[in-house]
Order: sequence, then structure tokens, then C-alpha cells
Amino acid sequence: MDCLFCKIAAGEIPAQKLYEDDEIMAFLDIFPATAGHTLVMPKAHYADLPETPDGLLEKMIRAVRKLSPAILEGLGSQAFNLVVNNGKLAGQVVPHVHFHIMPRYPDDTIKVNIPQQPYPEGEIELVKQKILQALEK
Amino acid sequence: MDCLFCKIAAGEIPAQKLYEDDEIMAFLDIFPATAGHTLVMPKAHYADLPETPDGLLEKMIRAVRKLSPAILEGLGSQAFNLVVNNGKLAGQVVPHVHFHIMPRYPDDTIKVNIPQQPYPEGEIELVKQKILQALEK
Repeated sequence: MDCLFCKIAAGEIPAQKLYEDDEIMAFLDIFPATAGHTLVMPKAHYADLPETPDGLLEKMIRAVRKLSPAILEGLGSQAFNLVVNNGKLAGQVVPHVHFHIMPRYPDDTIKVNIPQQPYPEGEIELVKQKILQALEK
Repeated sequence: MDCLFCKIAAGEIPAQKLYEDDEIMAFLDIFPATAGHTLVMPKAHYADLPETPDGLLEKMIRAVRKLSPAILEGLGSQAFNLVVNNGKLAGQVVPHVHFHIMPRYPDDTIKVNIPQQPYPEGEIELVKQKILQALEK
């Protein structure tokens, strides 16, 4: 398969690895949003988060928990964003599931604008029903 | 403790729950970025992701995997962002760890600008060393 991250997993493309075991890998993004921008992925190819087996997601989130304090301490950051872009419309570029850990700095260039406003009257109950109905399928 | 999410976990503040068990809860954000914006959190109070026990994070990511396809299907979305804002500088508002699931729509108002550029020559190796040294502590 012509997947960039599969090639990194296979060692065909070199990476600055922070963690690796039989199933997952964490490495520095070579085009970082901020210094220390890290990607955590399974070695096996899964296109997105819902396709990825629970056991691998569990290993990935444990890796985030272990690595993130070291990224912050090593680079003098006080905060980070963990982001998964799932699907093209959400900004997913490489169709091989991965978590972004982006340490934040007071002068970094990340700009996130997520306006939040209340639902129209009665709408939240409808939204809940639609989701619960889909869950029951 | 005067924590909004602890009060929701205790049932003192009502919530539109999508999932609940003894340890975690998923509910609709009442100030959604997009329709179906869901929060997943442990009921017990942990300020941030690194403070949260692995077992709870595992349950939370499993809930994301289970809920996200239903949120998308129920609401006709094709993509979502999973986001954890960890620390004030990363946009964390409520200091009780939580995952955001934000379904995306072609006409939504989320704007994310994360410019990415390569490291200066030799810098990525230094960044890796700093993180690995912090990991070894």
C-alpha cells in the first residue's frame, strides 16, 4: 500500500522515534506546528479512529499519557493539544490513524477559533435522540 | 470541590447523557461548536490527561470509538475532530479532564490554522534528545 505512515512503520522512511513497540510508534512530525509536535500511530494500517481496534487505541492513549509530560518538560512547555483529525473534512491528510500531540508555547502560531453557542430551544433533546438511535443500530 | 464537571458527574447539574457507567460519562456540550459536540470525561476529578489513570483514559478512548460513528450517522456528518485541550495555554477551560468530539459539517464555523514548517537544520535531533532525556527521569 502506498501509505506514508506504513512506510515509516516499516522503517522504509526514517523517523525521529520517541517510542516504539511491536504495535505502535511515536515520532516527531518533520513539519511541526510547534517544536516537539509528535505523532502517535499504530504500525498496522487503519484509516481512521473508529476502524482502529480498541486495544491499539488504548496503547496509543497510554503512550500519550506517558510521552506528553516528557515532551513538555523536555521543551519547557506548559500545555499541549491532543488532536485527532478524523476524515477529510476534519483536516485528516494521511489516511492512517494518528494522534497529534502539539506542545503549546506563549508565542506559537497555532490559531484555533471554535465559536460555541447554545442550541436553539428543544434542539439538544433532538440531537441526543438522533445519536442514541444510531447507537442502538 | 467547586468543579462544574464534578457536579454533572454527581447529577447535581443535569446533562444530556449519551453514555454513562460507574467511571465515565459522555454528554452533549450545551454550548456546542457544532451540533452533536460531545464531551467524554471520568466521573472522578482529574485535572488533566497526564494525571488521569491509564484505565480511565482507556475507557474514554473506547467510548470515543463507540460513540463517534453514531454521532456522525445520527447527524449526517462525515468527519470529526477529537480534541483534548491540556492546560490553560492550550485552551483548557474546565480543569477536569475531558475529550471533545466535534462532528464537522461543510458549513460549520470551526476555523483551525496550524501552520507547519520544517525544523531548522539539526534541530529535530536536539528536540528528540531533550524529550528522551526527560522520559528517562
